[in-house]
Amino acid sequence: MGAALTIPFTDSGNEVRLWFTEYDEAIWKLVHKGKEHPRIKVRLPDSLKLYRPDELEDAVRGADYVVIAVSSAGVRPVSARIKGLVGGETTCMVVAKGLEEVEGRVFRMTEIVERYAGVKRVVYVSGPSLAAELAKKQPTFVVYSSADISLARSARKALETEYYRIFLSDDVVGAELSAALKNVYAIAYGIATGSSEKAGVPRENLKAAVISKSLEEMGNIIVRCGGKKDTVYGLSGIGDLYVTATGGRNSMFGRLLGSGLSLEEAVEEMKRRGVGVVEGYRNAKVIAKFLAEKRIGREEAPLLFSVYDVLYTGASVEKVFKALAK
Amino acid sequence: MGAALTIPFTDSGNEVRLWFTEYDEAIWKLVHKGKEHPRIKVRLPDSLKLYRPDELEDAVRGADYVVIAVSSAGVRPVSARIKGLVGGETTCMVVAKGLEEVEGRVFRMTEIVERYAGVKRVVYVSGPSLAAELAKKQPTFVVYSSADISLARSARKALETEYYRIFLSDDVVGAELSAALKNVYAIAYGIATGSSEKAGVPRENLKAAVISKSLEEMGNIIVRCGGKKDTVYGLSGIGDLYVTATGGRNSMFGRLLGSGLSLEEAVEEMKRRGVGVVEGYRNAKVIAKFLAEKRIGREEAPLLFSVYDVLYTGASVEKVFKALAK
Repeated sequence: MGAALTIPFTDSGNEVRLWFTEYDEAIWKLVHKGKEHPRIKVRLPDSLKLYRPDELEDAVRGADYVVIAVSSAGVRPVSARIKGLVGGETTCMVVAKGLEEVEGRVFRMTEIVERYAGVKRVVYVSGPSLAAELAKKQPTFVVYSSADISLARSARKALETEYYRIFLSDDVVGAELSAALKNVYAIAYGIATGSSEKAGVPRENLKAAVISKSLEEMGNIIVRCGGKKDTVYGLSGIGDLYVTATGGRNSMFGRLLGSGLSLEEAVEEMKRRGVGVVEGYRNAKVIAKFLAEKRIGREEAPLLFSVYDVLYTGASVEKVFKALAK
Repeated sequence: MGAALTIPFTDSGNEVRLWFTEYDEAIWKLVHKGKEHPRIKVRLPDSLKLYRPDELEDAVRGADYVVIAVSSAGVRPVSARIKGLVGGETTCMVVAKGLEEVEGRVFRMTEIVERYAGVKRVVYVSGPSLAAELAKKQPTFVVYSSADISLARSARKALETEYYRIFLSDDVVGAELSAALKNVYAIAYGIATGSSEKAGVPRENLKAAVISKSLEEMGNIIVRCGGKKDTVYGLSGIGDLYVTATGGRNSMFGRLLGSGLSLEEAVEEMKRRGVGVVEGYRNAKVIAKFLAEKRIGREEAPLLFSVYDVLYTGASVEKVFKALAK
């Protein structure tokens, strides 16, 4: 996603720098030689400045906007590394999705950036944006959220293009929780899809019920955590859930479970496909902990906890279908 | 859908009667001989009593529940025919979706039934339920709505099965408007799908934005008409929109428009496929009139009106994409 974002950010007239993590060395070698980026299948802009893993500090220094687009687990170490280099007029844009546990407590991504990078100007980026489509300049609509909406507005002014349209919101909690929760609900959708393939009969009615129930639970959880219900029903919620459920890896994993594979077999099969452990699997555990901290019980999110139980307590996928009738 | 419903209604232990309209003579002949119903591809229950077009009065007489599952245009004449035969303890269940203009004013389906059949006990049935899936007893979750929720509750008690689950709501306005509006929004989704095929590039981000914007507009319209926003975000709204957009005929029609066909060519192609004029096309016009009656302006539903303009004022499909940025 970081690489894909360099395309609209360049088109909107900015000097753009791209830093590669230590996991991206192989990609750096290709991009450095002017070759196609292997994940998003496009050549990156010629004007782009490339930075290797040990050059993070150079990449960040003097930037107006620092966009953190690493895995959720990477947000804390990256934030710690850029501390002191960002601040004052720099705005940190956070694209990472998920919740992370630090010293026994669960934090949202922007909380980690604020805490470990020591920045106050933070904007959260969410909404349905598959990187490969954005990189091909296909129409993409996202949301910039910030408690101080003028920050999000300034970022929009600097970064919007004809094909990358930005909406504004002050509901950071709603946007971040939607982004984290949707991965788990996408597994439920995948389970419904897989069960349909196993039965050899379309089950669109069931899949629609999963989406509907997912939104209901996401809305309730977010309101309990101080966010706004409308966020769940916008681009950050249903929009992102739609692309994740109908396309992503979380749903692929659920599909394997729904088609009859055991948890171990499904994990094995995902590895065989070169995908590894999906975010929703890891997230389900930290989300369960987060909900416990917020005193949100199982009865308030039966579908979410049914997926958790399939992943962590040996429950069968039937539990997911039963949760829909609650 | 009427035929499909006879299956859970029989399974829930009722004596079920099925009346065929004058358009269903060919189907009656097959079903009467014990053959498969050609639309939903199953044999109907042996215990089912069948009634021909001129036997409507016999079919209705003495029934506890009368389920009206005809086209929206058929609701008024059917209601008028059963007037006097229903009433007292009979509950009318309305499955028809859409709005209809009568003598210059636009009415919801339940209003027409109340007015022309002269009944007071009315329950509206909505939610994602593709008939062919329900007929095969695949898991289906629907909503029974009634201003007097005890009516909906009684109906659930009489009609629910393990695979046909019923939720209750008192928001008839929200359920009916969702059911009518979603056909038009499904055309917008189809246009996005068709544009993606034309471009030869996936446009899932765009399709997600259409769904998100559709829900936002549906929510605002329904609140303005006295319904509840939560209805749009449940089975009656997003649930039904999902199955209609990803599968139905309205979206097929939009797809043709999005892939570059003119309105006339798309209508022609639909006829060639044996589908004819889709509901969303007819509905868009009566919905526009309905919104004018409610003094809801174009700026409150730009996506809806962009579809209207493509269908009725010669606008290009680009207008639909522009509406998403509003």
